[in-house]
Amino acid sequence: MSEVLTERSARVVAARKLTRRSGRDAAGAFLAEGRQSVVEALAVAEPGLVREVFATEAAAAAHRELLSGTRVPVRLVTDRAAASLSETVTPQGLVAVCALADVPAAALVQRPPSLAVALAELADPGNAGTVLRTADACGAGAVVFGAGSADPYNGKAVRSSAGSLFHVDVVRSAPLPELLPALRSAGVTVLAADGQGEVSLADAGPAGLLTGPVLWLFGNEARGLDPELGALADHRVRVPMRGRAESLNLAAAAAICLYATQSAQV
Amino acid sequence: MSEVLTERSARVVAARKLTRRSGRDAAGAFLAEGRQSVVEALAVAEPGLVREVFATEAAAAAHRELLSGTRVPVRLVTDRAAASLSETVTPQGLVAVCALADVPAAALVQRPPSLAVALAELADPGNAGTVLRTADACGAGAVVFGAGSADPYNGKAVRSSAGSLFHVDVVRSAPLPELLPALRSAGVTVLAADGQGEVSLADAGPAGLLTGPVLWLFGNEARGLDPELGALADHRVRVPMRGRAESLNLAAAAAICLYATQSAQV
Repeated sequence: MSEVLTERSARVVAARKLTRRSGRDAAGAFLAEGRQSVVEALAVAEPGLVREVFATEAAAAAHRELLSGTRVPVRLVTDRAAASLSETVTPQGLVAVCALADVPAAALVQRPPSLAVALAELADPGNAGTVLRTADACGAGAVVFGAGSADPYNGKAVRSSAGSLFHVDVVRSAPLPELLPALRSAGVTVLAADGQGEVSLADAGPAGLLTGPVLWLFGNEARGLDPELGALADHRVRVPMRGRAESLNLAAAAAICLYATQSAQV
Repeated sequence: MSEVLTERSARVVAARKLTRRSGRDAAGAFLAEGRQSVVEALAVAEPGLVREVFATEAAAAAHRELLSGTRVPVRLVTDRAAASLSETVTPQGLVAVCALADVPAAALVQRPPSLAVALAELADPGNAGTVLRTADACGAGAVVFGAGSADPYNGKAVRSSAGSLFHVDVVRSAPLPELLPALRSAGVTVLAADGQGEVSLADAGPAGLLTGPVLWLFGNEARGLDPELGALADHRVRVPMRGRAESLNLAAAAAICLYATQSAQV
């Protein structure tokens, strides 16, 4: 019977450092917590993406089939050790250590996907994960996180992405003021979501703005998009509103814009 | 100069009970926190909606114009008293006590709006507020919270609604198994959002399902919609997905469905 690691074991201490961005960057790894994330991580083709899995004895028993089918090392840990790696209120006792797999911004310029998303100054990791999930559902090939945005490898982001972090190309700490013009030169239509935008989303489809390779740019949840960044887009697009709400929540606006684009690209 | 109330004063103690649902139901009142919520609450036409406003001296000075224009009593409170009424990490020192203003389910049956939303077993108050905000933005006239759903008057729900709670009719603790058939008899098309639905949202518009009075029904964030409830709808509608995500986040799915309906009803 294999050893059960406590929260003081060197492996668990090392993994716990991955709950902070500086620790993730130093180790080149992040934590994916819970059954859904671990399933998706193990399902990804690239060998070496998952370095090891920590599981409590109860979780190892509950997910025996999943864990016996992998060649990745599975380490048994105490409930307390699992909780120390968890960022949720009710830990599932199952955490995978995964290699950071983000791609350089240049890769996006070389082969722009038909739909991509860029997030400038996004503050909330939960929103980062939700937008990743929505982008994946709408067939986006990449999600770009600008310098200063929430980290897509943050525990809450990984969890909200519900596995989508493993499905789309992720670019981190992207220099958006340089990247946006480069993408436009590469033939991408850059659309900035902006409540005051000069183009209505209802007109963007008929005007042919959604068909080419498209990148949607979203700003901060509270402050919206920096006007200097918005000026670098081909168009600033507003979601038309009929009620008395001043604006939409960022994740809701992203869902509407990305679904409209998916529909136009069918 | 008026008295500054501490967290032990009877008024503040009474208001603090409104942070719990039982306290809200007993007093027939709820708390709306922060500048945006207080502005929207005071802007609502019905007299008596706002019973009183608590403000720290700093907040009273910062919002002098807003507060001097109202006949609602403004009570100065200590920072600590304001914090005791707050459910945020960084309290703004401004909280309005508002009368519960939800309408009976029967009112919806008598005069169905062209777009309405029903939430069955929604768990997260933040989602409750986000869906309220999206519904408002898309011109919905009412949002129905089924028995067992999160409370739209929960502090986090009020805050996420960004004022939209004051713009749309809210029905609380609605008996959905009785209400849905009654709405259908009244001519409302009831559409259940369901990842396995037999109708694609892309076909719902061309099939004319979005034009009449429409009510969208959404289920629980994790478990989705109870099949028995879904069976009471006219159609079960799925959002078509192109990527590898298994499903959309509930608030994202709601944004897509409601915006599609708004667009079809223009």
